[in-house]
Amino acid sequence: MSEIKKLGEILKRKNIKISGAESCTGGMVAAEITSVDGISAVFNESFVTYSNDSKHRNLGVSLATLEKFGAVSEECAREMAQGAAARSGADIAFSVTGIAGPTGGTKEKPVGTVCFGLFFKGKTVSETAHFDGDRESVRRASVDFVISMMLDALASV
Amino acid sequence: MSEIKKLGEILKRKNIKISGAESCTGGMVAAEITSVDGISAVFNESFVTYSNDSKHRNLGVSLATLEKFGAVSEECAREMAQGAAARSGADIAFSVTGIAGPTGGTKEKPVGTVCFGLFFKGKTVSETAHFDGDRESVRRASVDFVISMMLDALASV
Repeated sequence: MSEIKKLGEILKRKNIKISGAESCTGGMVAAEITSVDGISAVFNESFVTYSNDSKHRNLGVSLATLEKFGAVSEECAREMAQGAAARSGADIAFSVTGIAGPTGGTKEKPVGTVCFGLFFKGKTVSETAHFDGDRESVRRASVDFVISMMLDALASV
Repeated sequence: MSEIKKLGEILKRKNIKISGAESCTGGMVAAEITSVDGISAVFNESFVTYSNDSKHRNLGVSLATLEKFGAVSEECAREMAQGAAARSGADIAFSVTGIAGPTGGTKEKPVGTVCFGLFFKGKTVSETAHFDGDRESVRRASVDFVISMMLDALASV
């Protein structure tokens, strides 16, 4: 069984409602989640928040966080996940914010830098990964990474 | 050049801001749009609104429309597109709402029925299509259909 099917089956079986917020993956994670039959029982909505303004308006990411740490930061990723959970009332909420390239990289945050957030059971965790490859490779690796994060978090449920 | 690259190039060249709202495609259209390099110049956000409640809260689809016509209706598709445009300030906004299956079909609206909305230049149009095949086929056909709708609408720009 694919990882996304595993995730979907756990969410449905345990009735764990899911939501999320995506920047660089731009809807790819939501598209994967909704590939699972019958996922509407636990998936109501998610957010594709590409711009800083959208992260602020739709998810409540603070302007101070965006200014101080930038959109590609674990601080922002955590606020995105928390915002997605709060807005949707979900039990688990993921976030992805990174630099897929080919432009947008800096010395401190090169292309392939992606930050992830995960809200679950009232706690929010975050991680940063660095992926090689072109825009689609970075985006695809980001999808797989956040699905693994969720499976790990749900392993103890 | 692929259809999505064509669309992305037109949007960027003409500085036409885009947004959208997806139900059955669950983020696949946004994922395609964000596969285009540099699309952040014209794409700020879009909405994955799977449940009726999410369509109402995030896009302003009226409860009367949802009750009278259902979520899979051209009426709902038009309100979704209008809502996505209004919320994001986009110039063009698409919507997709349908029954990808394998469950959820009825006699009047069998699996494969998908409604599309498109807001552009203050006007909103809608279409209904019927696609054969499994869940992924219906979703994939829906993505291609709405991208074509947008290219057609932009052909005169």
